[in-house]
Amino acid sequence: MTIFQLHKNASDCGARRGILDLPHAQGIPTPVFMPVGTQGTVKAMTFPEVEELGFRLILGNTFHLYLRPGDERVRRFGGLHKFIGWDGAMLTDSGGYQVFSLKDLRTITEEGVRFRSPLDGSYHDFTPERVMEIEHNLGADIIMAFDECPPYPATWEYVEASMERTHRWLRRCIDAHERLGGDTSGSILFGIVQGSTYDDLRRRSAEYVGSQPLAGIAIGGVSVGEPQLEMRRVLDVTLPFIPTDRPRYLMGVGTPTDILDSVMAGIDMFDCVLPTRMARNGTLFTSQGRVHIGNARWTDESGPIDPDCSCQVCRRHSAAYLRHLHQTKEILYSRLATYHNLAFYARLMEQIRASIENDTFLEFRRSCLSRWHGSPDDAVDRGGDVAD
Amino acid sequence: MTIFQLHKNASDCGARRGILDLPHAQGIPTPVFMPVGTQGTVKAMTFPEVEELGFRLILGNTFHLYLRPGDERVRRFGGLHKFIGWDGAMLTDSGGYQVFSLKDLRTITEEGVRFRSPLDGSYHDFTPERVMEIEHNLGADIIMAFDECPPYPATWEYVEASMERTHRWLRRCIDAHERLGGDTSGSILFGIVQGSTYDDLRRRSAEYVGSQPLAGIAIGGVSVGEPQLEMRRVLDVTLPFIPTDRPRYLMGVGTPTDILDSVMAGIDMFDCVLPTRMARNGTLFTSQGRVHIGNARWTDESGPIDPDCSCQVCRRHSAAYLRHLHQTKEILYSRLATYHNLAFYARLMEQIRASIENDTFLEFRRSCLSRWHGSPDDAVDRGGDVAD
Repeated sequence: MTIFQLHKNASDCGARRGILDLPHAQGIPTPVFMPVGTQGTVKAMTFPEVEELGFRLILGNTFHLYLRPGDERVRRFGGLHKFIGWDGAMLTDSGGYQVFSLKDLRTITEEGVRFRSPLDGSYHDFTPERVMEIEHNLGADIIMAFDECPPYPATWEYVEASMERTHRWLRRCIDAHERLGGDTSGSILFGIVQGSTYDDLRRRSAEYVGSQPLAGIAIGGVSVGEPQLEMRRVLDVTLPFIPTDRPRYLMGVGTPTDILDSVMAGIDMFDCVLPTRMARNGTLFTSQGRVHIGNARWTDESGPIDPDCSCQVCRRHSAAYLRHLHQTKEILYSRLATYHNLAFYARLMEQIRASIENDTFLEFRRSCLSRWHGSPDDAVDRGGDVAD
Repeated sequence: MTIFQLHKNASDCGARRGILDLPHAQGIPTPVFMPVGTQGTVKAMTFPEVEELGFRLILGNTFHLYLRPGDERVRRFGGLHKFIGWDGAMLTDSGGYQVFSLKDLRTITEEGVRFRSPLDGSYHDFTPERVMEIEHNLGADIIMAFDECPPYPATWEYVEASMERTHRWLRRCIDAHERLGGDTSGSILFGIVQGSTYDDLRRRSAEYVGSQPLAGIAIGGVSVGEPQLEMRRVLDVTLPFIPTDRPRYLMGVGTPTDILDSVMAGIDMFDCVLPTRMARNGTLFTSQGRVHIGNARWTDESGPIDPDCSCQVCRRHSAAYLRHLHQTKEILYSRLATYHNLAFYARLMEQIRASIENDTFLEFRRSCLSRWHGSPDDAVDRGGDVAD
């Protein structure tokens, strides 16, 4: 199924402007950032707020939703959109990342993964067929194939065997998805390229996944602890082997800098817990880089946290009040901080898209990086988890 | 200063409809309920949401705000309204309740109370003069005199001595308040009647406080653990000795039933942590009484938590989704639950006011009590704390 139209390629780098058409949201401009709504809520936000910031596509985590409230229950409610009251589009991951993260609580076989619920210790099996069924029950617009995301670092031998199994699982996902109605069912299947930081494996995986009948292709296994430069090399060696007519989704990325670099390489879709999780932990994104609201410098600041930000929070509240709410651990702090950080990401993506249209993306990227340069930790905390 | 106009008295009970005019909000209809915003935020709510529910008068806690962010800092920001970004009116308590609750960390003398900060163990002195200064720095529309709220139960001898000291402190508060500009400063002083559950002391306190030049009179020392019937007797023996032309504020009350009973006795103003705190703990107020969202009966409920409620939450979300958010401890649960409970209180007060206007208050009260009758815990959890 064709869900992506490419509108413009930058003349001097890989950046591209496109349009994504999904069952619950048509005409989504790319590059696009998807806020993470792990358990059926973008933490601390209501859906009208998410919408008001311009987001029309959000992520849900299959592993969490399978455990609570349960995919069968969600199906009986008419799917995830109806259950949570979200009018826009959704993407669900496959649960693979979380299941493999359980370490001592799971066993991998060719058939799939048996794991114990971290909630009650009960046993569960995720196979490609079962995951397709679960994701169809949830009914997101985009559903991800069941894959193994190998840890970083891992040996070439481990990654090769894991990748080959992920490819075999992809075939089984495609078959199971077809039996459930395929892309016209309302849920569109994306495949995932793996291969860790091994150039030859990334190329092999990109060629294999790119050869399959898939409406979109994701790059997985990045933002799992590898150095920032490694992520950039992965994109350089992978993207040339992914068909240009399909949307390219870089899973779990990333910092504003990572997003600029990945757009430059040719990525169209992003998701990351950073803006929401860091907000709750006290880190706010500003036009001058990251700041920590707990810092004493904000105690008497009567201006907003970012004078260049026009979001509701910066228009209404002083940095001193935000800091007071943070120091007193008030829920309103998490609300305002999350709103502000998501507003920052929404604006960044808008500016990225506008600059690609004007063919000034590289200039825009340089100006961002020079403004954020003084921000000490931009390169340090890069997420490393796909559920918020 | 006259801030209250009495519009109508019920023909068959003590209920009264009035209008409260405050510096930051004119024409507030009474009986009125004030949501509690202990640390400069009504927990989990934004101020536009508080306003949208119709609340124009909220409470702040002097003890908490004195410790963080500090009354001097708030003064430098132009007062509490500006610091927190709230356009409506505010009332601050005197901090007495919290200071006396510190038990092992405080010493009472005629001069005032010395206490240790629960945050860092530092020593602080609250005297009537100091508290007036702090409350003027915070700059709420209504400020409460410094009093001792005796524990329940307490001996007649203890309560009498405490009440007499509270009366002497009230005189010192009035004098200090005058030196700071008096009621025309923007902050209007209310006195507090004490006397615990002793009829003779309540009467003596009501007569004393009522004889002072005060724009409003509060009844303190209720909702501190005494049985529900005791609270009602306190009102019956106290209210006849409070001048009818002053607004009467029952501090820290209460449940919907307590509010109906107190309105019936002639109370005009209420504040209570119940709707906000119980929301966060999983208890929701509905037209059929209280329910606990953790109860399994809501697991598959596709309708709202209260079919008779027209609030944003009940219009948009199923009880099953609310329960899912509660079980997964999501911030959005606290937001939606708080919003719903405050919407319930706002509507209850509107209906109370309308029924007094139509002279059908007693009928309205009876219909509420019969609908809530099946609700097992309405009489049990009655707050018992004045800070949220």
